Amino acid sequence: MKHMFFNDYSEGAHPRILQRLGATNLQQMTGYGEDEVSLEAQRLIQNAIGSPEAAVHFVSGGTQANLLCLASMLKPYESVIAPVTGHINVHEAGAVEATGHRIEAIPAPDGKLRPDGLEPLIERHADEHMTKPKVVFLSHSTEVGTIYSQEELEALSEFCQRHHLYLYLDGARLGSALTAPQADLTLAQIAKLTDMFYIGGTKNGALLGEAIVINNPALQSEFRRHIKQRGGLLAKGRAIGVQFLELFNDDLYFDLARHANRMAHQLAAGIQALGFGFLTPPASNQIFPILPDTLIKHLQVDYGFYIWEPQADGHSALRLVTSWATPEKAVDQFLVDLKELA
Amino acid sequence: MKHMFFNDYSEGAHPRILQRLGATNLQQMTGYGEDEVSLEAQRLIQNAIGSPEAAVHFVSGGTQANLLCLASMLKPYESVIAPVTGHINVHEAGAVEATGHRIEAIPAPDGKLRPDGLEPLIERHADEHMTKPKVVFLSHSTEVGTIYSQEELEALSEFCQRHHLYLYLDGARLGSALTAPQADLTLAQIAKLTDMFYIGGTKNGALLGEAIVINNPALQSEFRRHIKQRGGLLAKGRAIGVQFLELFNDDLYFDLARHANRMAHQLAAGIQALGFGFLTPPASNQIFPILPDTLIKHLQVDYGFYIWEPQADGHSALRLVTSWATPEKAVDQFLVDLKELA
Amino acid sequence: MKHMFFNDYSEGAHPRILQRLGATNLQQMTGYGEDEVSLEAQRLIQNAIGSPEAAVHFVSGGTQANLLCLASMLKPYESVIAPVTGHINVHEAGAVEATGHRIEAIPAPDGKLRPDGLEPLIERHADEHMTKPKVVFLSHSTEVGTIYSQEELEALSEFCQRHHLYLYLDGARLGSALTAPQADLTLAQIAKLTDMFYIGGTKNGALLGEAIVINNPALQSEFRRHIKQRGGLLAKGRAIGVQFLELFNDDLYFDLARHANRMAHQLAAGIQALGFGFLTPPASNQIFPILPDTLIKHLQVDYGFYIWEPQADGHSALRLVTSWATPEKAVDQFLVDLKELA
Amino acid sequence: MKHMFFNDYSEGAHPRILQRLGATNLQQMTGYGEDEVSLEAQRLIQNAIGSPEAAVHFVSGGTQANLLCLASMLKPYESVIAPVTGHINVHEAGAVEATGHRIEAIPAPDGKLRPDGLEPLIERHADEHMTKPKVVFLSHSTEVGTIYSQEELEALSEFCQRHHLYLYLDGARLGSALTAPQADLTLAQIAKLTDMFYIGGTKNGALLGEAIVINNPALQSEFRRHIKQRGGLLAKGRAIGVQFLELFNDDLYFDLARHANRMAHQLAAGIQALGFGFLTPPASNQIFPILPDTLIKHLQVDYGFYIWEPQADGHSALRLVTSWATPEKAVDQFLVDLKELA
Repeated sequence: MKHMFFNDYSEGAHPRILQRLGATNLQQMTGYGEDEVSLEAQRLIQNAIGSPEAAVHFVSGGTQANLLCLASMLKPYESVIAPVTGHINVHEAGAVEATGHRIEAIPAPDGKLRPDGLEPLIERHADEHMTKPKVVFLSHSTEVGTIYSQEELEALSEFCQRHHLYLYLDGARLGSALTAPQADLTLAQIAKLTDMFYIGGTKNGALLGEAIVINNPALQSEFRRHIKQRGGLLAKGRAIGVQFLELFNDDLYFDLARHANRMAHQLAAGIQALGFGFLTPPASNQIFPILPDTLIKHLQVDYGFYIWEPQADGHSALRLVTSWATPEKAVDQFLVDLKELA
Repeated sequence: MKHMFFNDYSEGAHPRILQRLGATNLQQMTGYGEDEVSLEAQRLIQNAIGSPEAAVHFVSGGTQANLLCLASMLKPYESVIAPVTGHINVHEAGAVEATGHRIEAIPAPDGKLRPDGLEPLIERHADEHMTKPKVVFLSHSTEVGTIYSQEELEALSEFCQRHHLYLYLDGARLGSALTAPQADLTLAQIAKLTDMFYIGGTKNGALLGEAIVINNPALQSEFRRHIKQRGGLLAKGRAIGVQFLELFNDDLYFDLARHANRMAHQLAAGIQALGFGFLTPPASNQIFPILPDTLIKHLQVDYGFYIWEPQADGHSALRLVTSWATPEKAVDQFLVDLKELA
Repeated sequence: MKHMFFNDYSEGAHPRILQRLGATNLQQMTGYGEDEVSLEAQRLIQNAIGSPEAAVHFVSGGTQANLLCLASMLKPYESVIAPVTGHINVHEAGAVEATGHRIEAIPAPDGKLRPDGLEPLIERHADEHMTKPKVVFLSHSTEVGTIYSQEELEALSEFCQRHHLYLYLDGARLGSALTAPQADLTLAQIAKLTDMFYIGGTKNGALLGEAIVINNPALQSEFRRHIKQRGGLLAKGRAIGVQFLELFNDDLYFDLARHANRMAHQLAAGIQALGFGFLTPPASNQIFPILPDTLIKHLQVDYGFYIWEPQADGHSALRLVTSWATPEKAVDQFLVDLKELA
Repeated sequence: MKHMFFNDYSEGAHPRILQRLGATNLQQMTGYGEDEVSLEAQRLIQNAIGSPEAAVHFVSGGTQANLLCLASMLKPYESVIAPVTGHINVHEAGAVEATGHRIEAIPAPDGKLRPDGLEPLIERHADEHMTKPKVVFLSHSTEVGTIYSQEELEALSEFCQRHHLYLYLDGARLGSALTAPQADLTLAQIAKLTDMFYIGGTKNGALLGEAIVINNPALQSEFRRHIKQRGGLLAKGRAIGVQFLELFNDDLYFDLARHANRMAHQLAAGIQALGFGFLTPPASNQIFPILPDTLIKHLQVDYGFYIWEPQADGHSALRLVTSWATPEKAVDQFLVDLKELA
């Protein structure tokens, strides 16, 4: 196989992260994430989001972050609103439900929630025989690669405040969303507009790890007990703290995401130049070109990728994912091969 | 501070583990633990336990392993039997209960369960207004440093089979338990005598990670869905697979544990030579000497450790923990300082 | 108000049930449903379904029956398939999710599930990052008043067996479904074709109470512990046992349902004669005529009913529900008044 | 068998309750407990406790009330403190744990909690690796028949307020506790001193049903959604409302309890006169005489009762329970027979 575009976690960690793990390896540190390295990483993130009062916690993965954060915000009868395509609604094996909560899903072909889609759901759920929605879940970038504009996130945030809902953002691919060419949202704005979110490390250069950020002070209390109870409090919390220390020490986190976006953009531009369209407009490091099934079969010989969704007339939408580790040569070669096959 | 004896997770990973992480870092691999490295690590563990049919899964921490494994074995009304001192019964913030299950606790001053303690509980719970115990939870070594003999584990296993109970072993400190001077239990015997157990990596040289081993074929099916649902399925599963590959590539796992035990043994022998007693007989890498409170205060200036339990007459039991990373010099110095203060 | 057609639980119990409660009132009986009256009621139901091996349990309400039964059949990662309109999917305030399980909903305009709707869902959920569907939930009659034919239920049952799914039937309105004019399904057939179902008492003449029937022997064991754990095991279990004893002593259960159907049929025929249509074809004791909103407003002065769903052109679908207690005079008067207003 | 002293739910309902059920039977009423009868019953209870702001809800049984109320007050990591003998800790089949919460049990030979038993538990649980206790659960009368004095409940209430704990009282046998000869606590005081409690109907003359009273305004909101979600919201809520209407219409509730206490008192006095002692001092409608095992065997020929606990020297403690329905003749006969056998 020439290259795998399956996802953005096919490689290990960015070399600088491994180096930093090595450099601090034999220092004795306090356990359970209360070590100096994790504390310093938390401070760097607080600075990056411009909010020294935010609480920052490190956990090992995205599903864990989602189930932890959502369950921490909910009373037993309260539910989460998510787009039908939302990761928690499809690909987390019922993780949110296993904490006792229902997800109320809203159709969203481009993966994005909007106030006019939420409004009727909220009204309907005034009925006390239904769950009471309390958290709005969105992902940025979304499962279909799209991103929210500042205006869109502000509208959602305003809607949530008006209806006493919490706004939660799944940032598994936040780096790519923030550094996309058309992005006009900053990390600091996200921290202002949401109650809680997480900054994805696993899919942007870390070996593993996500940084949960709690902006709403009312939601910060005893959060470590939530983490402990769900099995997320690592004895060697430093193992994740060190990685975020390196990622936010300078602009590494954003530089890695920018590279991923550049690679995706080159792929998208090349594919478009050959006359092919896309399921959703390319924006971040996941793109969804629509190609003939016969061509796809040939591509699969040398390249790894998922077939996302069958389309009309013997075509399908693929998912191509780039990352901090995607070599430019692999992108060039893919386009050369595609041109040849097309 | 001269040295911290707080626990066995104060340092990072054994250097060979970091090296192996680096060596495989940029290879593209399949996600979610289905990569070749994780598969090879699983095979090494199957060999080490002499059971090619066992299922092996890697997760990031011990509480996660416990809640996952226990919940996977239980129907809603079924419960877990554990010693009062058991980690799940005290220090996991209600993690097992959060999956919906009650723990029925049995007093066990030395941390160990025995059939004659289990028998009356089983009889009492024939009452259908009570939970139905289904899994027996034990840890090896226990929370108070003791270890099970082969005879003891066989007796428990036989009891469990007779009463249709599953036997689960928390092996957070399994390395130390298996290589303790008086140990007569092997990894292969543990695999034969239990339905499920986990091999602790975090407390024996890994950066993080535990290997769950499912011996009972009836419990193997769909276990990855359990892991996914509880937030334990890591996108870069390789990050843990690589570490167990190195630990079980040769005898590294056991060598590291032997060092920890040797250090604990030297500490215990030196303390005993000064005329002090212990809460439980020293056996593994956790020892619990009983010292005068005034002496303890002086020791705390230069050494880190937990005070475990107040005793009579102005004495307390400490917990001293050694690890693969404990320098012999630190042990020697501690004994010199203790002698001086005593 | 002249009459309320809101639902089939506006009155208390059929007088014969109150009489029987009185007749047995001062006899001392064993608690928790193990009294002779409850045992006799169980036998009558076993006879009525032609299955002496079925297990029968009495609980106080339908949501309780649903959450209890469904949770008893599921492993943590398993889910329930239900129509979008299903009661558990809309109007039980997240009761199933509160037991830790996700509902995978399928669009079904007429409230009925069919194999060709289930097939693609089952295929998609082979993905281990999704829940694994294990139970198919249907209600008979459905939330929109329709009923399954024998052929339809056989097809579902065959599909479930082929895919190792359990088939569960919510019989809140089973009496009406079985005695509807076009019904060709018997109670005995339902017991053969499903793994578990419940016979609704509350909506067919009982003061309160539902009879859970477990046909699949593998699902019978320890069910009383499930009931106890969910708070459904009544100390005076006799209070429900007595009612089912009376309902199944002769054909009372079916006679009451037949009356409800006859009243609904008269209503439907009268409404149709005036030229109005229906949301779904009238079949059981819930009918959904579509009337002009202005006419509805006038009707609401003297009659109670729910507006089910707005329709095009200033029309809405109402829900009119009849019961064992609906007086024929009330139906006649409603039709007279409707004619006058129309 | 001459008489069953097994429990206080061996008979049906007090005849006045059945009469009232009959008298209101055919009135059409609103469903789900929002009918006029239930509302009036709520007002009567608000009056009886001297607190018009209290929220009152009716559910069908005690385990349901307990799991509902406790889960409604807790965040995921919070736990319930209960005496080891507490009903929720022993005889509810893990109902509280099934809602995700741990019970932290405290030894209490007489079934009663006291601040000096709670204090060390609270201190220990400052450790964030443990659950955080949030509700104190007590029953009045207790499982071993004892009752709290006003002074004792005030001390507990004060302790709870100081430590930001909720105080919850299981009143399955509240009638008997309040009308016991040595009782100095009133219903109004209980409402002032607790955050939530329930008034037991099932064990004091109702056919079934308990009245949950929420005194703390912060805990009242959306409670009906909690009830619905746990399967406790009855379509014919009136069925329980009517019963409490009759029980609190005049002093019926207390009169019934007084009779039960008088019968228990006569039993206890007669047994004591024969020279036998008790496990706990007789106080309410459950007494626990200690008799020789040989004598017990003879008694079991004609009387039904549970053997509670073996004692030394071939003796055992029995449980004898009286109720509103216990005939004085049965008590007299029991004492005559006992005298003869002794």
